[in-house]
Amino acid sequence: MNFSGKVVIAQGGGPTQVINESLVGAVLESRKFSQVTKIYGALNGVEGLVNEEFIDLTQETTNNLEKVAKTPSAALLSTRVKPDKAYCKEIFKVLKAHDVRYFFYIGGNDSCDTVRIVNKYAQEENYEFRAIHIPKTIDNDLVLNDHSPGYGSAARFVTQAFMGANLDNKALKGVYIGVVMGRHAGFLTAASSIAKKYPDDGPHLIYLPERPFYMDQFLKDIKQVYDQYGRCVVAVSEGIQDEKGVPIVTKLCKNVETDAHGNPYLGGSALGELLGNEVKKKLNIGRVRADTFGYLQRCFVSCVSDIDLMEAREVGERAAQFALWEDVDGSVTIQRTGKYSVDYQLRSLKEIGGKTRTMPDEFINEKGNYVTEAFYQYCRPLLGSGLPSPSKLRAPRVAKILNK
Amino acid sequence: MNFSGKVVIAQGGGPTQVINESLVGAVLESRKFSQVTKIYGALNGVEGLVNEEFIDLTQETTNNLEKVAKTPSAALLSTRVKPDKAYCKEIFKVLKAHDVRYFFYIGGNDSCDTVRIVNKYAQEENYEFRAIHIPKTIDNDLVLNDHSPGYGSAARFVTQAFMGANLDNKALKGVYIGVVMGRHAGFLTAASSIAKKYPDDGPHLIYLPERPFYMDQFLKDIKQVYDQYGRCVVAVSEGIQDEKGVPIVTKLCKNVETDAHGNPYLGGSALGELLGNEVKKKLNIGRVRADTFGYLQRCFVSCVSDIDLMEAREVGERAAQFALWEDVDGSVTIQRTGKYSVDYQLRSLKEIGGKTRTMPDEFINEKGNYVTEAFYQYCRPLLGSGLPSPSKLRAPRVAKILNK
Repeated sequence: MNFSGKVVIAQGGGPTQVINESLVGAVLESRKFSQVTKIYGALNGVEGLVNEEFIDLTQETTNNLEKVAKTPSAALLSTRVKPDKAYCKEIFKVLKAHDVRYFFYIGGNDSCDTVRIVNKYAQEENYEFRAIHIPKTIDNDLVLNDHSPGYGSAARFVTQAFMGANLDNKALKGVYIGVVMGRHAGFLTAASSIAKKYPDDGPHLIYLPERPFYMDQFLKDIKQVYDQYGRCVVAVSEGIQDEKGVPIVTKLCKNVETDAHGNPYLGGSALGELLGNEVKKKLNIGRVRADTFGYLQRCFVSCVSDIDLMEAREVGERAAQFALWEDVDGSVTIQRTGKYSVDYQLRSLKEIGGKTRTMPDEFINEKGNYVTEAFYQYCRPLLGSGLPSPSKLRAPRVAKILNK
Repeated sequence: MNFSGKVVIAQGGGPTQVINESLVGAVLESRKFSQVTKIYGALNGVEGLVNEEFIDLTQETTNNLEKVAKTPSAALLSTRVKPDKAYCKEIFKVLKAHDVRYFFYIGGNDSCDTVRIVNKYAQEENYEFRAIHIPKTIDNDLVLNDHSPGYGSAARFVTQAFMGANLDNKALKGVYIGVVMGRHAGFLTAASSIAKKYPDDGPHLIYLPERPFYMDQFLKDIKQVYDQYGRCVVAVSEGIQDEKGVPIVTKLCKNVETDAHGNPYLGGSALGELLGNEVKKKLNIGRVRADTFGYLQRCFVSCVSDIDLMEAREVGERAAQFALWEDVDGSVTIQRTGKYSVDYQLRSLKEIGGKTRTMPDEFINEKGNYVTEAFYQYCRPLLGSGLPSPSKLRAPRVAKILNK
């Protein structure tokens, strides 16, 4: 058995459907280890760590924890703060003052990097400490992972949204553009392809940040589909960019807000509106509609993948086991081991922190306007069981009498 | 038994989650009557009636019909065409040529008016004919109905969306504005209130087309909530208007598209963006986000109310019974008879066609920025069973040590 002390858990970055499963997995697993004196939750991620804003999860009922696990968004609240070394030094002071010996941070690649820096301080100070990064991101952009907790449920939302949008667009014809989250990685936008059941179903076109976006080709592609079906459903990633890496939204729009890291805010509905206007003007199509899925796609209550739920729970449990049983630091990763099965491996914080994975070439078609069968095989299991399957009428046509 | 002949069913207006339940209810019930020679479906609503675009639903399998019933959007496709008298005369010619004696049209108040005019022609021509309007609209704006099929499921979507948006906004604080469908009636926007579980939950403010919208008051309201909770979740109807009835979006935005009826298209995301910009500028709040729910709210696959599904099926069944058994014309209406039970009554086409119901005064608070308990009691049963209920952590705070 290794050193005793407190466990602190926190959540960072954008919320997901299943991030609380990881929290509850880590809490309940930690309770099994006698060297754990207490289990704290830090509020608002690293902000809570610096400001000593803790709640004592040791005193939370198991029953309520299980209910929270099924609730989307971050129960410990979140933060967009990306700490530097000085900030991490402050975090470490607080952890030391409270005799925190185990730190679990649920988040994306920035959160992983935070864990790495805090852990480095602990080592430099010869403080007995274990730090584990627990993965989560709807963008699915963590390197060395087959996929990330949160992606499957968000992908399911996108799929179900496009299933409905396709049916709606079929009933009232026109061009429909759905804008999906994803700054650099197109995984979430690509999931729209799972919505396609019948050959004429949308989405007919998918545009990803991994391929340069050319307005001329975009319009040509839509025209071709529209000429064939009298309608067109398009999935577009908010992060589509030109061949120089400039986001299309900043080219079409004058005033784009930037965040603390200087990244342009892509989540607004400007891109959809602007693309829609181009289609309307240049292709002279009357009914053009654009939806930006916005925050619904990451937190819509009860649209969830059972596979995603289970894996989110397990990465939390494994985090506690790695730290408390195996006495190691690192980032928990998901590896695919079969059709469909996974295993969890610990990788070093340095390998994953701050790095971004994008869609591999084999998942994108040659034209760069759709995904491949390999992507379908990759993505489908992650959406879980019980995915709806729309049906259409197959009754025969009736011969005309008046033939006007 | 009354006269024999064919049944024609069609669907008009915006699709809903449950409109195919009504279709299948009417088809399966019609099959039980021996005077029905065949059951046709007209494609694209009244367009199919004029152009003789029929499919023979007599030849559709019951199994597939049941699967189609559970599929959102209009399986017979839809139309936005609002026929005048000359158009209805053409419809009547086609119905006569195909020996159609029973006509069921699933749609809103415009569709009801179409049924009325076609029926009038039949009477004037002494043609034995029965015409029934089957109600559907997510806007819930049919007069003489307690509510309309399609509303409960769309309301459930809006509720679940705001449940998630509230949790998201709590985790990453700021102002969140969700724009909901509803040109004149605020019922769908008002359903966002069902998302509130804990006292500090959003939506904190709800703005409806039934009350004049003043930008100054809107900003004051948001500031008050923001000062109290450090965040604010707002539900806004796309149809909010000033005291003269001018839509706010047309006041804030220069180029608003108009439809065939000359109505401004309110469904774009301009309103949310523009309101968000006002909040950002005038209240100096950094994180302001706006989502426009768009087409997701009427066709998102599998977000459905079981009560809504059942009633949509029954209004279809009752339509066939009224025409084929009771030998009468009219519009099927839903009446609430208990807590919670309903009954279906036939009202005249004239009473309902072309008329719009809005929220009664008792459903809106005095300030015009929220709904009342009476609305909650009205709306909650319509969302059906198994509504998710988010949970939060209740663990106690930990005393600070460093107290920085």
